[in-house]
Amino acid sequence: MALIVQKYGGSSVRDTERIKKVAEHIVATRRAGHDVVVVVSAMGDTTDELLGLAGEVTGAPTPRELDMLLTSGERVSNALVAMAIQALGAPACSFSGSQAGVFTTAAHGRARIVDMDTTRVRQQLDRGAIVLIAGFQGVNRESGDITTLGRGGSDTTAIALAAALKADTCEIYTDVDGVYTADPRIVPNARLLEHISYETMQELAACGAKVLALRSVEYARRHGVPVHVRSSYNTRPGTMVSAAREVPTAERPSITGVAHDQSGAKITVTGLPDGPGPAAQVFRVVTGAESELDMAVRDTSHGADGRTELSFLVPADSRLPVVAALREHQEEIGFADISQDERIGKVSLVGTGMRSQPGVIAAFCETLAAAGVNIEIISTSEIRISAVCRAAQLGDAVRALHGAFGLGAPEGVAVAART
Amino acid sequence: MALIVQKYGGSSVRDTERIKKVAEHIVATRRAGHDVVVVVSAMGDTTDELLGLAGEVTGAPTPRELDMLLTSGERVSNALVAMAIQALGAPACSFSGSQAGVFTTAAHGRARIVDMDTTRVRQQLDRGAIVLIAGFQGVNRESGDITTLGRGGSDTTAIALAAALKADTCEIYTDVDGVYTADPRIVPNARLLEHISYETMQELAACGAKVLALRSVEYARRHGVPVHVRSSYNTRPGTMVSAAREVPTAERPSITGVAHDQSGAKITVTGLPDGPGPAAQVFRVVTGAESELDMAVRDTSHGADGRTELSFLVPADSRLPVVAALREHQEEIGFADISQDERIGKVSLVGTGMRSQPGVIAAFCETLAAAGVNIEIISTSEIRISAVCRAAQLGDAVRALHGAFGLGAPEGVAVAART
Repeated sequence: MALIVQKYGGSSVRDTERIKKVAEHIVATRRAGHDVVVVVSAMGDTTDELLGLAGEVTGAPTPRELDMLLTSGERVSNALVAMAIQALGAPACSFSGSQAGVFTTAAHGRARIVDMDTTRVRQQLDRGAIVLIAGFQGVNRESGDITTLGRGGSDTTAIALAAALKADTCEIYTDVDGVYTADPRIVPNARLLEHISYETMQELAACGAKVLALRSVEYARRHGVPVHVRSSYNTRPGTMVSAAREVPTAERPSITGVAHDQSGAKITVTGLPDGPGPAAQVFRVVTGAESELDMAVRDTSHGADGRTELSFLVPADSRLPVVAALREHQEEIGFADISQDERIGKVSLVGTGMRSQPGVIAAFCETLAAAGVNIEIISTSEIRISAVCRAAQLGDAVRALHGAFGLGAPEGVAVAART
Repeated sequence: MALIVQKYGGSSVRDTERIKKVAEHIVATRRAGHDVVVVVSAMGDTTDELLGLAGEVTGAPTPRELDMLLTSGERVSNALVAMAIQALGAPACSFSGSQAGVFTTAAHGRARIVDMDTTRVRQQLDRGAIVLIAGFQGVNRESGDITTLGRGGSDTTAIALAAALKADTCEIYTDVDGVYTADPRIVPNARLLEHISYETMQELAACGAKVLALRSVEYARRHGVPVHVRSSYNTRPGTMVSAAREVPTAERPSITGVAHDQSGAKITVTGLPDGPGPAAQVFRVVTGAESELDMAVRDTSHGADGRTELSFLVPADSRLPVVAALREHQEEIGFADISQDERIGKVSLVGTGMRSQPGVIAAFCETLAAAGVNIEIISTSEIRISAVCRAAQLGDAVRALHGAFGLGAPEGVAVAART
């Protein structure tokens, strides 16, 4: 008998018909002899609908009240799944994040789990019940206020529970069959990965793959929780995420997949005084505006007049505060102007052993050039190569790289033939 | 500076436009120098929609999970009102029933408040914040489970808070102007009552008046909380509910209003052995099926063959369990058959000093007879006369009594002229 944590995403419980299907699957797992703990997201578009209501009331909802509002969604879905399980004759009990002992930091909207008190969950498991826990939410022990973990927080709840309960596995049920070599909506012959390491999965998630939230993968890696990504619509085997690493050989890198991301905006600061000081000042202002910073590049070709250009990516939704913060410091830093561009995309090739194989970077650039995709910024690391291009060309870029590196082939990777 | 508890019903916050209006009214009260605690019901038909979802999942939702589901509605409305208040520049903080220290019995769906711990509410008031509390819900201290107080529970939350905080007044905002002499939708010239005593208000509520929930009036009476029923759509003065009693004189009873109720069903047990034993057996079975019992009558005209007929009212939604329970005991009790009738209504004349004026009962019966309304059961007490009639005639009955007893007149009561 194993202890299994199952997480179902919003699309898996989007209506009461789907909720009944999910309940059948949960009860089947219980009747196979396993202890089952379930984390359910809010139904379908509930969270967006609640955000819409908040937007009708005020342009600037306070984070504390927004968390109070949004956490209602998971209460509804978890209670309904519990009822559906009970209707099938199995004992079930649903808990809010607070009742389940999910203690977090006080950072509303992006709280981090700091402690799990699984006493009540254990009690219910010992009584033979299937335990349901509202995902995405917790409580701050000091203030008693309700918090949320941010987008993808239900994945984190499930993995944190699996870690705290020392569960045998954490199954993440979603509307796709698992982790693919690329988004199958863009690359029709994308291949399902049977296994992927935490490290590579983290990199894919950081580069825009949506199947698992980045923070939940970090959590799983830190606590060694085996994660099984599966479809809630069929019984296909899905993808196992674990510590076992992909091993590149001396001859060929191990390339896992192509990720893409269209959620960023490019900001370019022009007429910036040369030297390390002003660039550092810019970055300090950007991160001071609580924005993440990605893929910065300095164009030194304009260095003749002692002035350079600095471009970088920020999340599109922090574009306006970042520009405002920079404008405030314009005189002090001494730059000429700022331009911003939201019509950009980022494509990333993720794997291991890539920088040690310089042929990979060359093939990456040649492939995009042959597809007519102009690279605006490029960055490389041992485990990925990323390029910024026009948003309109992002699909072409993903397809070209996926094909050129042989990721859709049934076996292995064809890139060695190109280097 | 006073401490005022305000309660807003579901129709008062049915959409975000109404929520903004309610927020303006709350902030105006705060800016007039008062401390304000607010209880908000779920938006519009939220509770019925959630019940609908539960009904799609299972025919028999467990009370614990139903409470988990239903309590999400008040979280949403309270958080939205809090945001709307903050958008007007006033500090606000919303609490769930559990956070606000509303401790109840374990009876899911019909829990009673057993303790109020207002520590957190007081802290926020001391900080100058407007405090919002989700109505209708609480938590059982022993199990930590979320409970609901049943229909009208938000009124009870508001009155219990007013009692615990020793508030100066509890304002109940609703979609009508206050308490009327009859339902204005049925009696166009129904008169708004400036004042009503707890006792008379309890009787009106028990007889079907919906403006205040019966249990909340009991609570207000027990704790001496002055209740002010007002419209959330205008600034008219509304109705004060307090301990000051209506005083009948020797010549005329003080008649307050006409209530009606269509939520009951009539059950008739025929061929029942005569004598007190079998009737008591029937009532024991009915109350054992957790049903309320109202207006029982035994028809002794069939007593010649040693058999009688016993009729009584039960709430329509407990009709089926009551009939099933009786059928189980049919042989033991020895009755012949059961018939049931949902097409009945109950009309009640409520006031004080009525039984001591026998002319009132006569006038009541004559008025209904003149309106062509056949009385199927009648019961009287010092403060009311109730009659069961056909549901289709209920409106005629209410209008006839309201007119005959002069309740629509601008001043006083005309009944003395009839006796």
